[in-house]
Amino acid sequence: MNIVLIGSGNIATHLGKAFTDAGHHVAQVYSRTLANANALANVLSAQAIDNLAQLDPNADLYLLAVSDSAIAELAQNLPNDLEGTIAHCSGATDVEVLKDFKNHGVIYPVQSFSKHKELDLNHTPFGIEGNNEKSEQVLLQLAREISDNTFACNSQQRLALHVSAVFANNFSNALFQLSFDLLKEHNLPFDLIRPIIQATAEKVQNHEPRQVQTGPAARNDKTTMVTHFNFLSPHPDWQLIYQKISDLIIKTRENNSEN
Amino acid sequence: MNIVLIGSGNIATHLGKAFTDAGHHVAQVYSRTLANANALANVLSAQAIDNLAQLDPNADLYLLAVSDSAIAELAQNLPNDLEGTIAHCSGATDVEVLKDFKNHGVIYPVQSFSKHKELDLNHTPFGIEGNNEKSEQVLLQLAREISDNTFACNSQQRLALHVSAVFANNFSNALFQLSFDLLKEHNLPFDLIRPIIQATAEKVQNHEPRQVQTGPAARNDKTTMVTHFNFLSPHPDWQLIYQKISDLIIKTRENNSEN
Repeated sequence: MNIVLIGSGNIATHLGKAFTDAGHHVAQVYSRTLANANALANVLSAQAIDNLAQLDPNADLYLLAVSDSAIAELAQNLPNDLEGTIAHCSGATDVEVLKDFKNHGVIYPVQSFSKHKELDLNHTPFGIEGNNEKSEQVLLQLAREISDNTFACNSQQRLALHVSAVFANNFSNALFQLSFDLLKEHNLPFDLIRPIIQATAEKVQNHEPRQVQTGPAARNDKTTMVTHFNFLSPHPDWQLIYQKISDLIIKTRENNSEN
Repeated sequence: MNIVLIGSGNIATHLGKAFTDAGHHVAQVYSRTLANANALANVLSAQAIDNLAQLDPNADLYLLAVSDSAIAELAQNLPNDLEGTIAHCSGATDVEVLKDFKNHGVIYPVQSFSKHKELDLNHTPFGIEGNNEKSEQVLLQLAREISDNTFACNSQQRLALHVSAVFANNFSNALFQLSFDLLKEHNLPFDLIRPIIQATAEKVQNHEPRQVQTGPAARNDKTTMVTHFNFLSPHPDWQLIYQKISDLIIKTRENNSEN
């Protein structure tokens, strides 16, 4: 397959390498900034371009691997008579944004791409959407070559998945940072919390989270919750989060006991 | 060392086994419910008791491994002329609650004890507090025999540690359950999110969480945040959590860029 990457950031880099490793050819890398396009194009033995007029019109796939807010505008600037499939990689963007193209879809990796860590794309779930059977098959087939966990889903499901990932990944990481800051205020190292973070993630690998929920809220231990709440009084925003997530745990607990 | 366990739940069980494995002798296990005392006493070759009048007065350590709310009352019912060290295992309970005893302290494991998973106590951090040098040394020495990660800390530090663990463990697990429920509403399996949970926990093992923070709030991507917020409208409590943790991430981001 001949692939054009539109974008040269983290997702473009990880996917570009995976496609190349799977035997496909990345023909071009586009970025507004030629130096950025060059950096990735060199790795993939591709042509770097910074002008969409130079776009290869005969590629099989044009992958919009850019920030959500840039997808619509870039799509408008692509020639709309392309035969190849146009796809974006976003969790939160409706496939409709690409509706001007005959063959279009989405290839959404449920993973967090950062420069700091190599990723095992083999086990990364990929949600696939296509506007017709051909697009869906092209994208599913490609995803299957780089991951053992691919599935078709519609735009609403993909959005649910993206929001779920925000809670489970971005927000839990924000709570880790809050812990870091609280420990630092008391001259304690984050290392003291790292093992319990690892254990928490491992437990839910083969349990439903509510089955392994522990802590004061799960026991409805009001004395401890009040002690904690008061301890957090220098940080009203942390207090509010403490209260709201405790309420959520108590509600889940009550729903459980009703069942 | 001769040890009396007061309590027969998860913490008593895990610590009792670890002490026994380290060559100590659990002499007695107390529980209000004799059957519960028996269940653990049998495993540890100890005597089960359900009446504090039967307490061995010559033990080296009396470990109050009970719920936070039961510690104070149980402590009042122990003879206050005991020579051995009286310790509790709670993160949120001040050591002062044991002040009637000549030698007292705390041995606090920073870990979540649940029936569903075997624990590696070897790497579990143990926070130790003693009212005098002797108590601190007795408890530190004991903790060192079952863990390679022990440290002295005062009651305020221990509370900070406990609250941090609630955020990093209990609350992130609650967010995992929220993800589970949201996916289920859209007929998607939690398996799609499990790899990203694992990856998130792994990333912070050798980074400060803010260094690996990703997602719409970390990019201040307002379009996506509004899309997510509206998507969550059937769940106002989830919306509020979405908003407050996003605010926290945005604030951390701004503090970063000031540095």
